[in-house]
Amino acid sequence: MEVVAEEKQDNRTTLETLIHQNDRPKLDVFMENLSTVDLARAFSRLDKEDRTRLLEIIGYEKSAGLISKISDVGGPNIVEQIPHVQAVSIIEEMRSDRQADVLQKLKEDNAESILQDMGAVRARQIRQLMRYPENTAGGLMITDFLSYTGKQQVKDVLDDFQRHSEKYSDFDVQYVYVVSDTGKLLGVLRLRDLLLSPKDRLISEIMIKKLLKVDVDASFQELRDFFRQYSFLGVPVTDKEGKLVGIVRSALVREAANKRNNQMFLKFAGIVGGEEFRTMSLFKRSSRRLSWLSINIVLNIIAASVIALYQDTLERAIVLAVFLPIISDMSGCSGNQAVAVSIRELTLGLVRPREIWRVLSKESAIGIVNGIALGCLLGGAALLWKGNPYLGLVVGVSLAANTLVAVSFGGLVPLILRGLHTDPALASGPLLTTITDMCGFFFVLSFASFLLPKLSG
Amino acid sequence: MEVVAEEKQDNRTTLETLIHQNDRPKLDVFMENLSTVDLARAFSRLDKEDRTRLLEIIGYEKSAGLISKISDVGGPNIVEQIPHVQAVSIIEEMRSDRQADVLQKLKEDNAESILQDMGAVRARQIRQLMRYPENTAGGLMITDFLSYTGKQQVKDVLDDFQRHSEKYSDFDVQYVYVVSDTGKLLGVLRLRDLLLSPKDRLISEIMIKKLLKVDVDASFQELRDFFRQYSFLGVPVTDKEGKLVGIVRSALVREAANKRNNQMFLKFAGIVGGEEFRTMSLFKRSSRRLSWLSINIVLNIIAASVIALYQDTLERAIVLAVFLPIISDMSGCSGNQAVAVSIRELTLGLVRPREIWRVLSKESAIGIVNGIALGCLLGGAALLWKGNPYLGLVVGVSLAANTLVAVSFGGLVPLILRGLHTDPALASGPLLTTITDMCGFFFVLSFASFLLPKLSG
Repeated sequence: MEVVAEEKQDNRTTLETLIHQNDRPKLDVFMENLSTVDLARAFSRLDKEDRTRLLEIIGYEKSAGLISKISDVGGPNIVEQIPHVQAVSIIEEMRSDRQADVLQKLKEDNAESILQDMGAVRARQIRQLMRYPENTAGGLMITDFLSYTGKQQVKDVLDDFQRHSEKYSDFDVQYVYVVSDTGKLLGVLRLRDLLLSPKDRLISEIMIKKLLKVDVDASFQELRDFFRQYSFLGVPVTDKEGKLVGIVRSALVREAANKRNNQMFLKFAGIVGGEEFRTMSLFKRSSRRLSWLSINIVLNIIAASVIALYQDTLERAIVLAVFLPIISDMSGCSGNQAVAVSIRELTLGLVRPREIWRVLSKESAIGIVNGIALGCLLGGAALLWKGNPYLGLVVGVSLAANTLVAVSFGGLVPLILRGLHTDPALASGPLLTTITDMCGFFFVLSFASFLLPKLSG
Repeated sequence: MEVVAEEKQDNRTTLETLIHQNDRPKLDVFMENLSTVDLARAFSRLDKEDRTRLLEIIGYEKSAGLISKISDVGGPNIVEQIPHVQAVSIIEEMRSDRQADVLQKLKEDNAESILQDMGAVRARQIRQLMRYPENTAGGLMITDFLSYTGKQQVKDVLDDFQRHSEKYSDFDVQYVYVVSDTGKLLGVLRLRDLLLSPKDRLISEIMIKKLLKVDVDASFQELRDFFRQYSFLGVPVTDKEGKLVGIVRSALVREAANKRNNQMFLKFAGIVGGEEFRTMSLFKRSSRRLSWLSINIVLNIIAASVIALYQDTLERAIVLAVFLPIISDMSGCSGNQAVAVSIRELTLGLVRPREIWRVLSKESAIGIVNGIALGCLLGGAALLWKGNPYLGLVVGVSLAANTLVAVSFGGLVPLILRGLHTDPALASGPLLTTITDMCGFFFVLSFASFLLPKLSG
């Protein structure tokens, strides 16, 4: 334990020392030699002042690079903690899609005040980008691309490359796009063809005309599907009039898919918003978690009220109190397996929200098989413990029946929620456990009431 | 509901009709016009015979493409269900990394019998690939790459391109690699430089010498980090002697990260193996789920035995039976939030398995805040319901204390499991709930025993 703790301490301490020495060359070398993750970890553990000073020392451009690099591990968080002027200058150095991405994660008034102090043209572009829903082609596209009209010649394009080589070096140039005078997308030009063609050819003659593009409203699923089908590095995005408005890079779609999966995972575990880093403030972390928990506790109380209705039965067969939490917990587990498989198949597009019957038939089969198996296990354990076959029967049959309910309902809940255009990851679990708890308590206690003379005997 | 059901029916029915008509041209057109997901869905819902016939009709090459395409949505499953000879021929048409990938997912003897009937050279290559652990550079690399010795001239390389253009067109050529006579990696050549250099230059003169590469044993985390740092499309992989053995493509690393996240999600919900599709057999699905559930039920019974120890207390304050499942469930929820955040930070490398104290201090703070909040809620509800302040005190304080235990322990469990080189996703939940159930029941019932005269009054 000691070794690792010391080593981590070292990266951070080294950073602190270099910051206090104001030693830019050494800082640059040190930071370049750290892996992204080590850098993110060391940086996020600096105190606020040191962070601000570090960004000052390395300058706006490198700061932008640093924050972009660690953007999926808490970067935007950091922007909120540095002085306004510095934040503006750093964000101005980022690529357009990153800018929108970072600003979208800030509190609305923070983002607005940064936008107001940026160049008007840039701010307008970013606002435009921010208006597109996050996971559509519009929300994922970059607007830094190279386009020329078809009337230009190969040499015009090459000359333009030369003239703006510095500016373009920041771009991620894989293709060049050919547009009409009104900005309509006409074709795509591969760099290779540009290099191998005579300089006086019109680019409209060497471009690929049969071009693939996506609509600015294209959903995330469509983009994912597009890049599954075609192994391109990027796809041009057009608006309703066919005008070229941006490029979606395949790498970004993959990253976004990854991010969505992670958010799904955290939401499924009850983290509202799908993102939490331990570098966030205690208040933000605990209040977000609490918002989900407090809905849960209300649902829990409602479910448990079923037990209160059967207080007489319980009083006369107190041993049942041992089995109530087991039935509640096991049904939750069985149901959540089905929830997860449904969420996964929905995400992949392998099942549609309305294919209720397909899912119900598939899951109820598992519910019956596993219900019988678990019922036998719990019933057997009860029988062994108390030697009362009626107790075994009551808890065994109740668990079996409730497993069937839980697995079937668990498979359906995500489909129903998605059908209602709600995110299934966050809400499926609480809905499921409420229903399965109520059913489970009802099964055990009503069945027990019926056999009460045999149980309390 | 009707519309969608019909439409889905249609894709599948159309496929079936075309299969029975043996109409290859129409089949080709129809399948090309379906999106990957629609195709996967329609295909996986065909019965076994129709699937086999479809693959026969479209031929080995197209079949290989189809199965590669749907490999992340159940492709390998399908290979196991088609006749042996057909499976061999289809797999022979795949790219080397896909071959190893698909074979690794089959049952061992199935994979072995397919390998035995493949070309000897290819089979050796694949066996070699299958030997590397799944998520290392060796396990992810492709072995179809172009390499030349430094003594060759630009024109030799271009001639070779011409001669083998058909073979190479299947390759994913982005760079060409320069090696020594013994196969040692010396440099990388960009296609651009090859096209723009005089034909009689030695390629060793125009290659990039300061090259980045990864070791064949490089972990997934290192690869992820590499591509976070450098936006390359691929990185060469070398063995211990510095020999070039393969290429890892950045797209594949991203896909693998995605797959790992998905598996993590499903494991977290109790799906052993991290993968389940509803096209799998009922037996496979229910037995996998059951294997995890049956460990859970044993742990549950152990935890609930704490209640049995306090049967006297319960008998005299039966109202507590209503609160036991609530406390068990809520502590599980609070704890699982912490589990998920820890798993996520471990995956990102933002926390190390041995940083116990950091996690403990961060999580216990949340545990205290949220414990007090939830305790007040539940205690208040109890007070309102029964009008007994002591009851409110017992359940409120118990839930508060147990939330602290659950959140702290939940944060730590994944670190401990990872430290023991165990996968935290599958085991954290059951471990957590066992401990929190035992503690929770103990808190409520021992506290209640202490205040029993006030409760049963």
